[in-house]
Amino acid sequence: MSGMHLSLDEVWSLGATALLAHGCDEANAAAVATTMTFAERDLAASHGLFRLPGYVAALDSGKVDGTAQPRISHPAPAVVRVDAQRGFAPLGLERGRPHLVDTARSQGVAVMALVHTHHFAALWPEVEALCAEGLVALACPAYTPMVAPAGARQAFFGTNPLAFGYPRADEPPMVFDQASAAMARGEIQIAARDGHEVPEGTGLDAHGNPTTDPAAVLEGVQLPFGGYKGSAIALMVELLAAGLIGDWFSYEAAQHDNHDGGPARGGEFLLAIDPARTGADPSLAHSEAFFAALLDLDGVRLPGDRRHQARLRTPIEGISIPASLYDEIVALGGRRH
Amino acid sequence: MSGMHLSLDEVWSLGATALLAHGCDEANAAAVATTMTFAERDLAASHGLFRLPGYVAALDSGKVDGTAQPRISHPAPAVVRVDAQRGFAPLGLERGRPHLVDTARSQGVAVMALVHTHHFAALWPEVEALCAEGLVALACPAYTPMVAPAGARQAFFGTNPLAFGYPRADEPPMVFDQASAAMARGEIQIAARDGHEVPEGTGLDAHGNPTTDPAAVLEGVQLPFGGYKGSAIALMVELLAAGLIGDWFSYEAAQHDNHDGGPARGGEFLLAIDPARTGADPSLAHSEAFFAALLDLDGVRLPGDRRHQARLRTPIEGISIPASLYDEIVALGGRRH
Repeated sequence: MSGMHLSLDEVWSLGATALLAHGCDEANAAAVATTMTFAERDLAASHGLFRLPGYVAALDSGKVDGTAQPRISHPAPAVVRVDAQRGFAPLGLERGRPHLVDTARSQGVAVMALVHTHHFAALWPEVEALCAEGLVALACPAYTPMVAPAGARQAFFGTNPLAFGYPRADEPPMVFDQASAAMARGEIQIAARDGHEVPEGTGLDAHGNPTTDPAAVLEGVQLPFGGYKGSAIALMVELLAAGLIGDWFSYEAAQHDNHDGGPARGGEFLLAIDPARTGADPSLAHSEAFFAALLDLDGVRLPGDRRHQARLRTPIEGISIPASLYDEIVALGGRRH
Repeated sequence: MSGMHLSLDEVWSLGATALLAHGCDEANAAAVATTMTFAERDLAASHGLFRLPGYVAALDSGKVDGTAQPRISHPAPAVVRVDAQRGFAPLGLERGRPHLVDTARSQGVAVMALVHTHHFAALWPEVEALCAEGLVALACPAYTPMVAPAGARQAFFGTNPLAFGYPRADEPPMVFDQASAAMARGEIQIAARDGHEVPEGTGLDAHGNPTTDPAAVLEGVQLPFGGYKGSAIALMVELLAAGLIGDWFSYEAAQHDNHDGGPARGGEFLLAIDPARTGADPSLAHSEAFFAALLDLDGVRLPGDRRHQARLRTPIEGISIPASLYDEIVALGGRRH
């Protein structure tokens, strides 16, 4: 694959200028570009500039307001509500975060309900940002139906990722960010391209029968990880990110979407807890001993390790994106400088 | 299997009298007996009177204080801390619950940290009790190592159940309560007895190799559900139920336990959120429409359905326990009336 080599600054500029060219104001363009840059920095290309054409499509169709100003309220002492006013999620998250951090510290725990927004990014940056403040954090959004509940044969749950983070003493926080689908759609596409089978439990074919043929899964439906237990996690995500905060469930998001290729509307639930207020060892030595014992087991790696390795290199070495994607972004108004 | 038929009142009496005979005060005996009775009512025998000999062993060895009086504090406006003072969990949960409910309502969200306790029961009753107050609830305890983290070949995580509940309008709350092990140990034992294979991913043999032979898994180690994603959920449970609240991780609990057959010491993390303060539709019509759409899919059943079916019958029909267990409980001082 021929690639275009970019510094992280160039990633940011490409993203921000294309968004500005399609109606984002500076605050929204910067927030979304930063989110895409974090993904490229961590070599998570599927959430990086790869998403830009979708963001632009949502601006062009008028589904998303690129000049939205999030409105923040405090409906209860330990609850922050961010109404993103039909904007992309990154600015709402950025503006809401200080309120969430302050509330978690003053109350011990806080919920942030982010609503009326369009989320199209990885979750780990928002969870990491809370862990960087010394908080334990959890985040989950609903999305558009991709996954059949256990027992069913049609898509109903979103990919419904769940991210959780715990601060470390002298290391980047431990953060996992995992979809409730058994396998990422991109991985299934790659297996189909390469002629490999996928494990049982990855998905069903178009007739609702189990299959290990990735092409058949792509025409059928994906399944949750871990059978009915993973399905229960996906159900929890729907209820937290939609029912509890009064935004759309995944199936509603799909019904209302204009299918422009950009992110559907959906809410996000965030939880932040201050371990200093719940009885944790303030030095974190207790949890560090746990992490050390865990890592002492042969074969164990902490979630997020690959991201942390990647970000040691990419600020120096830069990253590559496919030349075709680069050309597309330039055609959309993206500039490297 | 020859069985002894019991009414639910008799279940409660058998449990309470045996506990009183081994040093519990009335409050502790009643709380633990109620917990076991809830399990029998729901036909979850593995958490019912089956546990009584373990409770008694922990009293006899002095590991657990049957007269413990939980101490409740409010270290932060949205945090309730219950120090069970080395008692069984049920009394701490019972005494702490009104504080958790009030705090969740006044603050919007609240954490309850239950520490210095011995938990040996199903989680769904405590989550259901919070849902009955109109709250969304999550609970998880750490326990003693039973499950190898993904990639490892030895037990390190506890069974680490996670329970989550969401209130319904005219139905019992939706509550799931699931261990992070792929299969319950009891199910593996039954497969071994009956000569059936278990699915790949259930566990490893004593040499750390994957196996579908249940007897080999019982000599080896269990695996988390859903591979590395389920392992991440188990990791989250450890961090919430131990690191965050300052109680023992599963591996520490095992190191300190006296192996009397009773429950090891461990903490429990509970979270309660008032949906009326986070933007949920107050009538619950929005989430009810979601549940209806979900149940409209062929093959879908809500978690907890079997429990709800069971409890329609058992208060009338009673339950059965093995005659050998009944005899054991009577020998321990249990009386039916």
